Amino acid sequence: MADLEARLRAVEDRLAIIDLVSRYGPAVDSLDGQSLAELWAEDGAYAFDSVTLEGQEVAQLVDLPGHRAYVEAGCGHILTSPRVEIDGDSAVAVNHSMLVLRSGESWRVERLSANRWELERGHGGWRVRRRTNALLDGSRGVPRLFDRR
Amino acid sequence: MADLEARLRAVEDRLAIIDLVSRYGPAVDSLDGQSLAELWAEDGAYAFDSVTLEGQEVAQLVDLPGHRAYVEAGCGHILTSPRVEIDGDSAVAVNHSMLVLRSGESWRVERLSANRWELERGHGGWRVRRRTNALLDGSRGVPRLFDRR
Amino acid sequence: MADLEARLRAVEDRLAIIDLVSRYGPAVDSLDGQSLAELWAEDGAYAFDSVTLEGQEVAQLVDLPGHRAYVEAGCGHILTSPRVEIDGDSAVAVNHSMLVLRSGESWRVERLSANRWELERGHGGWRVRRRTNALLDGSRGVPRLFDRR
Repeated sequence: MADLEARLRAVEDRLAIIDLVSRYGPAVDSLDGQSLAELWAEDGAYAFDSVTLEGQEVAQLVDLPGHRAYVEAGCGHILTSPRVEIDGDSAVAVNHSMLVLRSGESWRVERLSANRWELERGHGGWRVRRRTNALLDGSRGVPRLFDRR
Repeated sequence: MADLEARLRAVEDRLAIIDLVSRYGPAVDSLDGQSLAELWAEDGAYAFDSVTLEGQEVAQLVDLPGHRAYVEAGCGHILTSPRVEIDGDSAVAVNHSMLVLRSGESWRVERLSANRWELERGHGGWRVRRRTNALLDGSRGVPRLFDRR
Repeated sequence: MADLEARLRAVEDRLAIIDLVSRYGPAVDSLDGQSLAELWAEDGAYAFDSVTLEGQEVAQLVDLPGHRAYVEAGCGHILTSPRVEIDGDSAVAVNHSMLVLRSGESWRVERLSANRWELERGHGGWRVRRRTNALLDGSRGVPRLFDRR
């Protein structure tokens, strides 16, 4: 029984993290700052380009003029289902993301990035401690964000 | 034991819905109307653009001239792994989809959409009651299909 | 108890295969031949275009000049979460993949493919026996790689 419960817990953890990551795209594309805030730990961070949003600032991402312009033009944040590695109450997930943006009569890939999600289990379940996003534009060499723990 | 079984059932439900959504792209891209039909409830519906296919019509999607032209040109229906919210015997999944179409020597994103899948559990497992697909082309404002229940 | 264990095992198998497939993109995009090798059975194969890599050759994919050029330009291997069908110690997963490549100030879809992953369970868990990748460029007719078992 104890063994079954531990195996079930491992499965639940993995699915909870896959679910957490799946919530990012719909939240930002619908300007739902509340749902976005729920993904991060209260003192969590999101680092992309030369910006690091911390704590409450993460939810304000949906109010950035650049983000609003994307949504008005027509956009989708496409994230792949992540590779997940769990170690007790912490975990690392890595995946790809694309910002796909309306351009003329079709859409173009405006951003392509590597992502590393450092996660922690708190009282409310798994949350993002820090997400780091780096463009895959060839300027940074081999992407180290995909390294295994 | 009862608690373990309930937790296991929740995990099975979530995986069954993720699996259901993963079956759409391969079915339509290989013109497999039978596999497509199995995803929907018998009286289910699929609404996109100004079209609503109902019941048996859903499987006939693969016979639409526009769809045949996509497959002949070379295409892929790319769907993201969905956000899933389950409430007893009903569930809502939301995700992004792209129709990626051969164009010259590469491919372009011909459609980018928000999707809302209203699902129900029947005797044969989870099926689609209604899927709604709306282009993310900026013409409709913030996509409400991603709203939480 | 035996029933619960069997159901849990089925869930674990499904998640292990989803996880296996999620590891491909990060491995090849970070030139991590070791992680790539761990996905395949020792005598496994990867067939794409007119090439078939076998056994140790699979990991050497990251050293091919064409692959290195992609990574230097900036690229991402985007894979969808697979449809999975398990039968005892063997399984078939199918999904889409895209090679998204830096081009000017944005990225373009350089390859769009159907994939069929024939998997087997060994002592170390699920591994790839054979992956077959075929371009969805309209030149091959309806993609048979998506056929169900």
